[in-house]
Amino acid sequence: MAGKLTRREVIAVGAGAVAAGLAGSVAARDAVATVERWGLHEVELTGEPTGNPFDVNLSAVFTDGRTTLEVPGFFDGANDGQGTWRIRFSPPGTGAWRWTSRSDLPVLNGRSGVVEAVAPGAGNHGPVGVVETFHFAHADGTPFRQLGTTSYGWTHQPEARRRETLETLKASPFNKIRMLVFPNASVKTNDDLAPFVRTGPGDKDWDFTRFNPAFFQRLDACVAALCEMGVEADVILFHPYDGRFGFDEMPADVDARYVRYVVARLSPYRNVWWSLANEFDVVKAKTADDFDRLGRLVQARDPHDRLRSIHNWRALFDNGRPWVTHASLQNGSAVIDDARAVLYRDVWKKPVVFDEVRYEGDIAERWGNLTGLEMVRAFWEGLVAGTYVGHSETFDNPDDDYWLGAGGSLRGQSAPRLAFFKAVMEAGPTPGFEPIDKWWERHVGGKAGQVYLRYFGEAAPDGWTVDIPRDGLTGGERFTVDVIDTWNMTVERLPGVMTLSQGATKYTWHDPERPVVALPSRPWMAVRLAREHA
Amino acid sequence: MAGKLTRREVIAVGAGAVAAGLAGSVAARDAVATVERWGLHEVELTGEPTGNPFDVNLSAVFTDGRTTLEVPGFFDGANDGQGTWRIRFSPPGTGAWRWTSRSDLPVLNGRSGVVEAVAPGAGNHGPVGVVETFHFAHADGTPFRQLGTTSYGWTHQPEARRRETLETLKASPFNKIRMLVFPNASVKTNDDLAPFVRTGPGDKDWDFTRFNPAFFQRLDACVAALCEMGVEADVILFHPYDGRFGFDEMPADVDARYVRYVVARLSPYRNVWWSLANEFDVVKAKTADDFDRLGRLVQARDPHDRLRSIHNWRALFDNGRPWVTHASLQNGSAVIDDARAVLYRDVWKKPVVFDEVRYEGDIAERWGNLTGLEMVRAFWEGLVAGTYVGHSETFDNPDDDYWLGAGGSLRGQSAPRLAFFKAVMEAGPTPGFEPIDKWWERHVGGKAGQVYLRYFGEAAPDGWTVDIPRDGLTGGERFTVDVIDTWNMTVERLPGVMTLSQGATKYTWHDPERPVVALPSRPWMAVRLAREHA
Repeated sequence: MAGKLTRREVIAVGAGAVAAGLAGSVAARDAVATVERWGLHEVELTGEPTGNPFDVNLSAVFTDGRTTLEVPGFFDGANDGQGTWRIRFSPPGTGAWRWTSRSDLPVLNGRSGVVEAVAPGAGNHGPVGVVETFHFAHADGTPFRQLGTTSYGWTHQPEARRRETLETLKASPFNKIRMLVFPNASVKTNDDLAPFVRTGPGDKDWDFTRFNPAFFQRLDACVAALCEMGVEADVILFHPYDGRFGFDEMPADVDARYVRYVVARLSPYRNVWWSLANEFDVVKAKTADDFDRLGRLVQARDPHDRLRSIHNWRALFDNGRPWVTHASLQNGSAVIDDARAVLYRDVWKKPVVFDEVRYEGDIAERWGNLTGLEMVRAFWEGLVAGTYVGHSETFDNPDDDYWLGAGGSLRGQSAPRLAFFKAVMEAGPTPGFEPIDKWWERHVGGKAGQVYLRYFGEAAPDGWTVDIPRDGLTGGERFTVDVIDTWNMTVERLPGVMTLSQGATKYTWHDPERPVVALPSRPWMAVRLAREHA
Repeated sequence: MAGKLTRREVIAVGAGAVAAGLAGSVAARDAVATVERWGLHEVELTGEPTGNPFDVNLSAVFTDGRTTLEVPGFFDGANDGQGTWRIRFSPPGTGAWRWTSRSDLPVLNGRSGVVEAVAPGAGNHGPVGVVETFHFAHADGTPFRQLGTTSYGWTHQPEARRRETLETLKASPFNKIRMLVFPNASVKTNDDLAPFVRTGPGDKDWDFTRFNPAFFQRLDACVAALCEMGVEADVILFHPYDGRFGFDEMPADVDARYVRYVVARLSPYRNVWWSLANEFDVVKAKTADDFDRLGRLVQARDPHDRLRSIHNWRALFDNGRPWVTHASLQNGSAVIDDARAVLYRDVWKKPVVFDEVRYEGDIAERWGNLTGLEMVRAFWEGLVAGTYVGHSETFDNPDDDYWLGAGGSLRGQSAPRLAFFKAVMEAGPTPGFEPIDKWWERHVGGKAGQVYLRYFGEAAPDGWTVDIPRDGLTGGERFTVDVIDTWNMTVERLPGVMTLSQGATKYTWHDPERPVVALPSRPWMAVRLAREHA
């Protein structure tokens, strides 16, 4: 879907070549490299390391003459005494981008080249950003209507399981997945690949000054695979599910080194979002101020300016902090009722993503035993409130390796209904649904004067006495009427149109010829009015 | 109730006396003045004004040797060529407070004196501040459980009506009233007293450089009368209900001059709270940043550090700003359901006061037609959510002079029920009710392990299957059980006690011998469990 993601430019020169002043001629030596706009261009530099190669400072300044970006590099392992460093760049615009490297290791300093960014291929819509305060869109303007899922540890599973997870995602409606960088100590199926070099047999015997490139190369590949499928990777940098490894209580300088390393590796993938933490307020060794500092570090080190958020348990983070691009909330209560969900929207004037609303499943923990009906309801309530929601599954099994922890396959009833939901969402207004007449028990989202979606949840009325809020209406507007069964996934277009005029009070409008839409006395129904354009 | 509020120290000296070096001897001339701690001590200075007396800079530095406060003065009118300036100080602690004046008018400069602050009298509990993040208490530790009402324009009414309003308040449960400084142009009963000196016959013919002392003297008296009744005055500095006078669109320097003047006059009254605006987002001539600047000005100019907030219409202010002491919200939807109201609590980590939740009344506007039942419900839902709520009334009459606009008498059904509500609130935990197991549909507030209040709203169950969240319980705790009818104002103590132990899941506890509390299938019921202490 996304075309070829990466164009790798290999510049392998020894120390002697640098001494001979070959830097600067490298680009001229080859035909000019090309990469899609928003693709990933990788400069590979090799040389003999001195000292700890992870301590080498390396970056490259890329410029197209208008925009100049300093792009960090990173060490990616050594072979036969030759180290490999990489600088990954995702061009924000088309045209020629010239680069020059900066390093305190002479062999890596002063290199230069040029890469030509060409028009994006099919499926490459660019990175996702915030639009119209509360919504998302790709850089080319394509709406991004978030429909997320979570699988914390899918990247830490054996290869066959990872392939299964990707196949599941490909067949699913989900367009974003939350995933941990560090392993979740409680997932039994994890393999042994670790982010740091081991110094002994103990669970916490790590050399925190040396990363394990193989661990991160696998993570790269997982992110790239998601990118090629058009799935956003919400990469969780810290988490509290660490009874063993100590990655939740590293010293501050190690945290910062780790953040710089991951940002240098992953930010050039256009599908990356940064999640500073899962349940930040459960991470005992860090305060909200620590996460604020780390959030600012991500922002400062990421020339690609990917989306940034932080996920809570019981305490809300101050999502008003400037580095936070959207609210990533855990709250299963808020999405039971659109009139709850809508309350958070005004607070930070940023998009609200309910990234955790409890999970469809049957485990004893109360956060993991939603019915499929309840899981699906959360999305509809969130939609008419102008917010976005996330899914996951926790169906009990002897190994605790359900989708939430380890990926694999989906077993629940919600995923197909969420595909139907997604189709209704995508047929809605651009860039997204707005709550209509918030705070007045309307339970209507859409776009005033254009489209209205009234969701009835578990109520099972035999009809809806139409009460469309007046904003955006002047009288005489004509609307088609669809009756939607959100669980049985049907849309019934009623005959004729509804012509709106003021109703019994000045606040709500209706069609006096058709004041009621008949409904089948079943729960989980919705009605959609869509403006008929002549 | 509050004893004698004010001790006035009059220091009337002419310019000649200053030239003779009498400043400094004034205090020695008289016996030492005394005032209650948290009372109001007023220094009156007279002299011959030069130029605009409102432009004179005047303050006094008060110190008890540990705390030093610079207290602003203000011009309060002239008589026979002699101007009167006042400096009002409310001592935060007992003991001797020495003061020295500073002024750019020589006659007012370098005066000094001493006032002895003595123990507060009965009913004087000191100003209200924030305690335990989400609650309020007086400075002496007495809880302040906010039960507010609003009467925007009561101070602008003729004297008989003002007296009626004060009598109504005295007989009511309300302990805070929101009130405008500037008149509300839409209230027909307003008299003609105006805050600025008129320059012509037009509604907007004001000399913004000269206040009208008589207007503010009346405001002083209104605030003082509330103080003596133990009612907090939530003084609204700006509002948008100004179709005539232009006080909502004054130049920035006039706004600042006005804020300084009102703060100097009123902040020494211990019952003053500052509300920067009513419906700040309806004030067309000001942005949120303008109000932020004015909020910081209030904070900077108020040595008594009274509570500060700002009230919204549809857009929320950033109540995380440091000068904001508590969230003052308009939202009638949030208090229909405690699970909504609770969502705002975590956002700013400050007390949440729903100062406007629609009004009990019968006008055509939908914000003014709550039934008494709905008005009362808002308080109970807010209580179990750990928040505070405000009341008002809008019963239609030919002059539109209902309680909300002009004070007078109350006609609704809610006020007596709110007196009953207040008694239940006051019998609850100190400093206030906390939501218990928020986000899990418990609808219980109180204090974990000590007291639980379960509110059923409009549901009319025939019984409550007890499901008390586990926090604070270890097993065997004994509780008395009260069945409360919040509308009919009855409390029925059930025989025996309830002894709690773990229930069917680990999350909720109950008494296996008494798993259900029978209820009368009526709405508006509550059940209270209170820990029995041997």
